[in-house]
Amino acid sequence: MADYKAPLKDMQFALRHNARLPQLAELPQFEDASDDMVSAILEEAAKLAGGVLSPLNVVGDQTGVKLVGDDVPTPAGFSEAYQQFAEGGWGSLQFDPEYGGQGLPYSLSIPVMEMWQSANMAWGLCPLLSQGAIEAISVNGSDALKATYLPQLISGEWTGTMNLTEPGAGSDLAAIRSKAERDGDHYRISGQKIFITWGEHDMTDNIVHLVLARLPDAPAGVKGISLFVVPKFMINADGSLGERNDARCVSLEHKLGIHASPTAVMSFGDNEGAIGYLVGEENKGLACMFTMMNNARLAVGLQGVAISERAYQHALDYAGEREQMGVILKHADVRRMLLTMKALTEAGRALAYDACASLDFAHATDSAEENTRAALLTPIVKGWCTELAQEVTSLGVQVHGGMGFIEETGAAQHYRDARILPIYEGTNGIQALDLVGRKTLFDKGVAAQALFAEMEETLIALQGQGDFAKEAERFAAALALAKEANAMLLEEGAKDRQWPGAVAFNYLMLMGTLAGGWQLARSAVVAAQTDEGDATFLQAKVLTARFYMAQILPRCQGYAAMVLNGAEDILAMSDEQLASSWYS
Amino acid sequence: MADYKAPLKDMQFALRHNARLPQLAELPQFEDASDDMVSAILEEAAKLAGGVLSPLNVVGDQTGVKLVGDDVPTPAGFSEAYQQFAEGGWGSLQFDPEYGGQGLPYSLSIPVMEMWQSANMAWGLCPLLSQGAIEAISVNGSDALKATYLPQLISGEWTGTMNLTEPGAGSDLAAIRSKAERDGDHYRISGQKIFITWGEHDMTDNIVHLVLARLPDAPAGVKGISLFVVPKFMINADGSLGERNDARCVSLEHKLGIHASPTAVMSFGDNEGAIGYLVGEENKGLACMFTMMNNARLAVGLQGVAISERAYQHALDYAGEREQMGVILKHADVRRMLLTMKALTEAGRALAYDACASLDFAHATDSAEENTRAALLTPIVKGWCTELAQEVTSLGVQVHGGMGFIEETGAAQHYRDARILPIYEGTNGIQALDLVGRKTLFDKGVAAQALFAEMEETLIALQGQGDFAKEAERFAAALALAKEANAMLLEEGAKDRQWPGAVAFNYLMLMGTLAGGWQLARSAVVAAQTDEGDATFLQAKVLTARFYMAQILPRCQGYAAMVLNGAEDILAMSDEQLASSWYS
Repeated sequence: MADYKAPLKDMQFALRHNARLPQLAELPQFEDASDDMVSAILEEAAKLAGGVLSPLNVVGDQTGVKLVGDDVPTPAGFSEAYQQFAEGGWGSLQFDPEYGGQGLPYSLSIPVMEMWQSANMAWGLCPLLSQGAIEAISVNGSDALKATYLPQLISGEWTGTMNLTEPGAGSDLAAIRSKAERDGDHYRISGQKIFITWGEHDMTDNIVHLVLARLPDAPAGVKGISLFVVPKFMINADGSLGERNDARCVSLEHKLGIHASPTAVMSFGDNEGAIGYLVGEENKGLACMFTMMNNARLAVGLQGVAISERAYQHALDYAGEREQMGVILKHADVRRMLLTMKALTEAGRALAYDACASLDFAHATDSAEENTRAALLTPIVKGWCTELAQEVTSLGVQVHGGMGFIEETGAAQHYRDARILPIYEGTNGIQALDLVGRKTLFDKGVAAQALFAEMEETLIALQGQGDFAKEAERFAAALALAKEANAMLLEEGAKDRQWPGAVAFNYLMLMGTLAGGWQLARSAVVAAQTDEGDATFLQAKVLTARFYMAQILPRCQGYAAMVLNGAEDILAMSDEQLASSWYS
Repeated sequence: MADYKAPLKDMQFALRHNARLPQLAELPQFEDASDDMVSAILEEAAKLAGGVLSPLNVVGDQTGVKLVGDDVPTPAGFSEAYQQFAEGGWGSLQFDPEYGGQGLPYSLSIPVMEMWQSANMAWGLCPLLSQGAIEAISVNGSDALKATYLPQLISGEWTGTMNLTEPGAGSDLAAIRSKAERDGDHYRISGQKIFITWGEHDMTDNIVHLVLARLPDAPAGVKGISLFVVPKFMINADGSLGERNDARCVSLEHKLGIHASPTAVMSFGDNEGAIGYLVGEENKGLACMFTMMNNARLAVGLQGVAISERAYQHALDYAGEREQMGVILKHADVRRMLLTMKALTEAGRALAYDACASLDFAHATDSAEENTRAALLTPIVKGWCTELAQEVTSLGVQVHGGMGFIEETGAAQHYRDARILPIYEGTNGIQALDLVGRKTLFDKGVAAQALFAEMEETLIALQGQGDFAKEAERFAAALALAKEANAMLLEEGAKDRQWPGAVAFNYLMLMGTLAGGWQLARSAVVAAQTDEGDATFLQAKVLTARFYMAQILPRCQGYAAMVLNGAEDILAMSDEQLASSWYS
């Protein structure tokens, strides 16, 4: 199979026209983000992704990882690739120059992150988790904690992990039982954590675990959770590594996909208690987690885009080579599948980049509107872009026909790897509840209406180009349905607590499908007018938007009807009736 | 994980009210199919499925199969289970008593087949392939061939395989290169076949391969293909097994799922040429294949229903046990997922059983209408029921949250196993082309209109029960859209050859989603009126139909719009534009 080719033209187009990078580069703190600089960074990243990480994807899947004593040797080539990544400064783009970061916009780091995830998602999870740890410490940590941990995390000398889940505490963090006891200037942590991504490995000398635990006198529930830094090896005063901490990987999970990413069961405090340092304040751990949650959720949505891109390239290559009554690329149904893959991927990319840009604007200009906009878009990006990844990677298998089911072909790996995305970092059911609850009912729909107003502007622009009359009509119809569904959600949600939860997922899919179409409409309006750039690419951009409006956007009709049909039929059946088809 | 429980109540309901079994039992040749007889058969099959085959499903997946010399040892317990199956006469239900069959209706064998596929799809493929071989020989074979092979195939003493695909000939059978040379009363076969399900194994003493090959003087294309019986061991005149034939498994595929089902690369004629016996006439092999293709396609659609049922039971068990902010079964979004699984599975079951019944009526009464009806429903059952299996098994993973991604949980196995279904026995793209072409355009929509007329009758029945006013409205809307899409297909298809192929898949999904709703509406009308049977089950049947009408049927709006939006935007993009996002 061919190695990954970074879709640089589409990435730069989306940065420029969907994520407003030129406007961002006008801000004083981002003056370095010139067009030339951006091109240079993306082209260099593309080399590492396509030339080094992508060839390791299959071998990583086949070799997998095993626990050997206390250690987890990574597949051949993984550690060397990581060294190249760290030496290239790829983990430091968006971080604070005070701690060795490059101070570039977060939204510029996004296409770079996309490349790692496209090239090798199992490997790419390692820097993605480090990024979360860096954010949690940066925002909430004391100066001492920052000075001790940030430089090595940002340089990539160490990696980071997030330790939230326990066997009885998944979506419900209130159920966390891990303990933290005060012990002088630090704490002693004990407990078991599961599903810890890259919890143990051999690519760096140290691993910095961020761990949620509960103090003995903590209030019950989520208001009694604190966040701690627990290093694998202690740090001496001179910065050198000291003794092994009392934190160990005790087993690895056997998973459907991302075989090369070690998913650890971590045991803290089997002996004297693992030494941990408080991040932020006692009992405010959940708030600390939330500071990084937006970014992490956007990053998982981006993984959905990334693996979709890879699956698309894979399928397109095959379809151009395989002969069955002519090359199969020429068959109308194969083209439908490929275009569906391409259109969903590009819609997801533009949407994810745009949402990330809002976070940049929010931070750089202290804009409450941009912050609210990012908060609204986050569950849509996480939820919809990971759902579309299921569809796109499945189409990737289908384009390969019988060969798609054979592991050596590689299409099945994308399909298996992608299946984690709707689950981790908050299941898509949780995202949907966040969207209808905190992001819509809580502000009485203000943020949603602001987004609809942006879409209206795009609609007017579409209508202004006679060539897009049909597309404008299709987009207007979907937008009207979404507004209707939104109005009903506000009305029914005010009356009944169960109603929003029952319709939440279809409302999320409605908003995602619409927002994806909106982004492609924005792209098409620009692409049809500009002569800046590659004509073939620009024409394809217009045709992709047309395809989406005709062949994907109509899904909104179904989603909207499901929301408007309400919760009644979803909640009517009893537990006993659910199990009434067989004799028990 | 709990073992499979056959959904006997729903199976019997569907046989009775969707598949018209009581009417069938009135025909003289099926007078044995009394209610008591049917119950007794299903209950016995349920024991073998739940007690013997289901516990072997996980071990089969984990052990898989390997080629050892010329042999393929099957996972522990598989062979013993097969002996129980053969001794119970389970492979003989619907076959000719002249050769040891039980002469029961084909539609009665369908729930029994569903049970094997639910309990253990990898194992269940073995009898499913034998069934295909029996049909091909029964319909097309000479009396001598039937006498030599049918009794042992029907009794299960031997198994059968279908050898169609070659590396260069998948969907395009015209490209077959395997050779057959005349040699006295038999032929010498040589060539390589791939994707041969259960091509080699140790569960029986002999394996009967049905092989497509080409005579030296055969016309080019599909009109030059002949079908041959090639036994693994030759049969002596006294019926005992003779020498090994020149046919061998040379390797097994490493697949995404159905790990315990050996998918063989078969080599025929490496030495003197494998001895084969012609089935039917020379160069008429494709016609012989077609005689069994309807049944095989319906059986694969049924596999989609079967694995969906298993995934549903699995998810329902977990949701009733897992506590996260209360037992997760109580969460509205989890209920939405479970009801979607239940409703799709039951809709698929009713549709598949009904289609199979049409074949029984067609054969028993020589009815051209029933034959046409079965032919129309076949690509819908194969295509739609295997697509719904993707959705249902994926929801099964999702209900399990993080545990769903861990292989030990078992939900992922259903998801992996199910992925072959839209691919084999004609990809769903091929099914869609069959539906729009041979089954709709070819007869100018006559069969489709007859099906719509049946749906109108159900609509009138729905409207006649005041309680179903909303459901009737929803069903009427979807039916109207399907008629509109059908009319446009007939109009545009007459003008342009590419148009039908471009819209075919969405047309198939439209017809499948509508037909599934129609079947549940038929069920609801009966369930609401009868007091025969379990009240909880009957109430659930009504509520399942209501859920489908409110929360699944609206998908038809999207599918119909995609068909009505036409082929234009699907066919507009050039090959170069498809690959224009990256620098090549």
